[in-house]
This record gives sequence, C-alpha cells and structure tokens, in this order.
Amino acid sequence: MDDTLWHNETYYLETGASFKQLLAAYVRPEEIERVLGEIEIRNVALYGYGIKSYTLSMLEAAIALTGGRITGKEMRQILELGQEMLRAEVRLFEAAEPTLAELARAYDLMLITKGDLLEQGNKVTRSGLQNYFRHVEIVQDKTAASYRRLLERHGILPAQFIMVGNSLRSDILPVLEIGARAVYIPYQHTWAHERVAESDLLQRNYYELETLAQLPALLARLDDEQDGWFGTVKRK
Amino acid sequence: MDDTLWHNETYYLETGASFKQLLAAYVRPEEIERVLGEIEIRNVALYGYGIKSYTLSMLEAAIALTGGRITGKEMRQILELGQEMLRAEVRLFEAAEPTLAELARAYDLMLITKGDLLEQGNKVTRSGLQNYFRHVEIVQDKTAASYRRLLERHGILPAQFIMVGNSLRSDILPVLEIGARAVYIPYQHTWAHERVAESDLLQRNYYELETLAQLPALLARLDDEQDGWFGTVKRK
Repeated sequence: MDDTLWHNETYYLETGASFKQLLAAYVRPEEIERVLGEIEIRNVALYGYGIKSYTLSMLEAAIALTGGRITGKEMRQILELGQEMLRAEVRLFEAAEPTLAELARAYDLMLITKGDLLEQGNKVTRSGLQNYFRHVEIVQDKTAASYRRLLERHGILPAQFIMVGNSLRSDILPVLEIGARAVYIPYQHTWAHERVAESDLLQRNYYELETLAQLPALLARLDDEQDGWFGTVKRK
Repeated sequence: MDDTLWHNETYYLETGASFKQLLAAYVRPEEIERVLGEIEIRNVALYGYGIKSYTLSMLEAAIALTGGRITGKEMRQILELGQEMLRAEVRLFEAAEPTLAELARAYDLMLITKGDLLEQGNKVTRSGLQNYFRHVEIVQDKTAASYRRLLERHGILPAQFIMVGNSLRSDILPVLEIGARAVYIPYQHTWAHERVAESDLLQRNYYELETLAQLPALLARLDDEQDGWFGTVKRK
C-alpha cells in the first residue's frame, strides 16, 4: 500500500493547473501539458520520482515553452509551487485510518512506497499511520526484482504476500510477476505514463476493489478459501 | 563508508565555480557563495541532501542574487549543471578498490550513505564496488537514531561496529554516541555546514587516518588488542 492511503496525484493535478495558469500568457494549456509530460518522462531515469523531480521538470518545461522568455519572478513562483507541495499536509482518504486499524489486528502490514527518501519518509511520519505498519520500505522503483529483494530480506514467501495499490504498473504487474497476489484500487486520475494494457491483467491472483474500505472483507474471504497467506503476511 | 570512496564534494565545488562564473556579470563571487550557502541550509529540511536539492537551491539563489533579472537561457544552463552532475562518472579514490578488496576478505562491509535514493543507488552501481559490500544502506540522514535502527535491523552490536567516514557530523559523532567506534578520514574540503567542535572528539573509540589505504593496518592492530568486533562487523 502506498498512495492508496492519501491524496497524492491530487497535489500534482492542482500544481499542474497553477503551472498552466502561470504560463497562460505565453502558450496554450494543451501544449503546456504535452511538453511537461514529455520532459517528465525523459527525466525519470535521471531525476527519479517525487516533488523535487517534478519541480525541476516544470522549470525546464517553462523555459522551453516560452523560448527562454520566462522571467525570474515567474521562475520563483514555480519554485514556490514545488515548495508548497513539499510542505502540504497529508490528506488521508476517509477509509484509510479505520481500515488499517482493522487490518493491523489480523495481519502484519508493510508500507511500500517509491520515490524520494526524504519526501516519502516525511509523508509517512506526518500521516500518523506509521504505527499500523510493522515495516515501512521506501524503494527506488517498484519492479519485480525490487519486490523479490524486499520479500527475501523480510523472509516472506510470495504466496504469503499481497500488495494493495493504485498503480497497475508499479503495484500490481510486478507483484503478479513474482507469483504473489495483488489488489488494485484505482484512483480516479492516473498518470499517462502509468497506463498498461488490460490483457496483462487476465490472470489469477488479481483482484480489483472500488475503495480501501472493501479490503478487510476481501481478505477475510480469501482467508476462508485457503490459508497460509498474507496481508501483507498473515500473523500466526 | 561512503564518500570516503569516491570524489563527491569535488563535483559540488566544480559546479559551484561554474555557477559563480555564470552569474559573474550580475554579482561578486563572495556574495554568490554566501547567499547560495544560506539558501542551501534553509532548504535542507525541505529538500534533503543531493544533487536535485542543490540544483533547486542554485536556481533560487540565482533569482535572488539577480533581483529576478536572470534570463531563461541562464536558468537552463543551471538546470544543465545539475544534470551534468547527475550523469557524471564516479571517480574513485586511488586506494578505494584495493583497500576494499583486502578488507572484504576479513570483514563484513556495509556501505551506509545518506541522501537521495536514486542518486546514491546509481552511484553505488556505477562505482563497480558493490560486490565488496554485504549490505548497502541508503538513509535519509545519519543520526544516532538512524545508526541504532540500522544496527538493530542487522543484528549487530555497537561493540561490533566501526564506521569509517569523512564527515565528523554524519559519520563520526552519532556513531560514537551509540557506543560504536569511528575512523575519521578527512577530505581536503569540508562543507561549512559540517564543521564541529574539536572538543566533541576527545573521547575513546575515535581514530583518525590520512588515507583509506591505512585502514587495514589500523583494523589489524585493533583486532590484536581485543577481539570480538567489527569492520563493519568481523566475520567469524
């Protein structure tokens, strides 16, 4: 679980809207979105994920989109948009706290989140949810290899592990690949870079829910069907 | 061990010099250094450590130092300075590889480095030194609490652990605080923010070397004096 617990993309969308407004005098909104998206994807390998990376990509896009005519004052406003995101309060989904409280009584929960160590660490701390998790792991990227390493390190078998998340590309597909289970809870918005083909999901071990609040019931049902798994990790 | 193995501050100094040159038409070098240093320290809590943080601070400083008169083209050059740092080859210290090869035969080595997960992870991979380390740990900050957590997680007693590093504030003092030992190998340049009072070092468990190449001999001497420790962690 990670951004299934709190609003994350909302902040990016809000900031993206402010960014477009800031450049409205120079260029059309669709053009801004297209160029920023291209620059973000090109920079992922170099910058990684997170707010600092997004800020640097906004700055680069602003210079490119205005042919260098952007002013120092406007650049400072873009820096401030990034700093506001870093300072923003963590807004939990309504179901997050009660659902975790319920699950933590029966399962060992692990928070697995990708991105910037400082940004994500701060977010977990400020969320107030830290105590429901037995482990908090911040990883550079969520690939089959990184999930495999994580489970090995904690001595967890894939059959004991279930991942819950809102990103098919990061939370679901790599987890299915290593033979563990995954529960997909879609977020209303999904970053273009994250979309995957439906056909990759026509397999076992995959479940989809509308909200986090439905998770305890799903786990209970799966628990009845067969034992010996997860939550992540069923407590003995 | 971390930046005891490869040049790191050198890159910051080189980039700092290019940054000063870029702003030479606007403002005196000493003023640039002062304002950039202030902004870096103010931003540490929000941005953390690393090249992306440094780039954002340079951009903020450039706008402040020029009263917003900095051009888009110059801002793009600052973004490129940061990207060059991220892409830069890892330049190892001469003694790094042979010393690690020697130590790895007798001790379990752990690389503990702070900062950005992606930046540091990439650097370790590109260094070619990864295989000498039993563990690689990238932490958000190096405090007594974070060292304590790390040792607990690996089941290592403080008496079994020795830290080798070039930062008194990050590598030495917090390690002494938890009752482990520390070897200080000063780097020729030290960031102003990192300086500490000499008096904090008048204690046992503290050793100072001129180069990494002297480390195997020190460890052998300490090994003879008493057994049951470290390397980090002496292999049975």
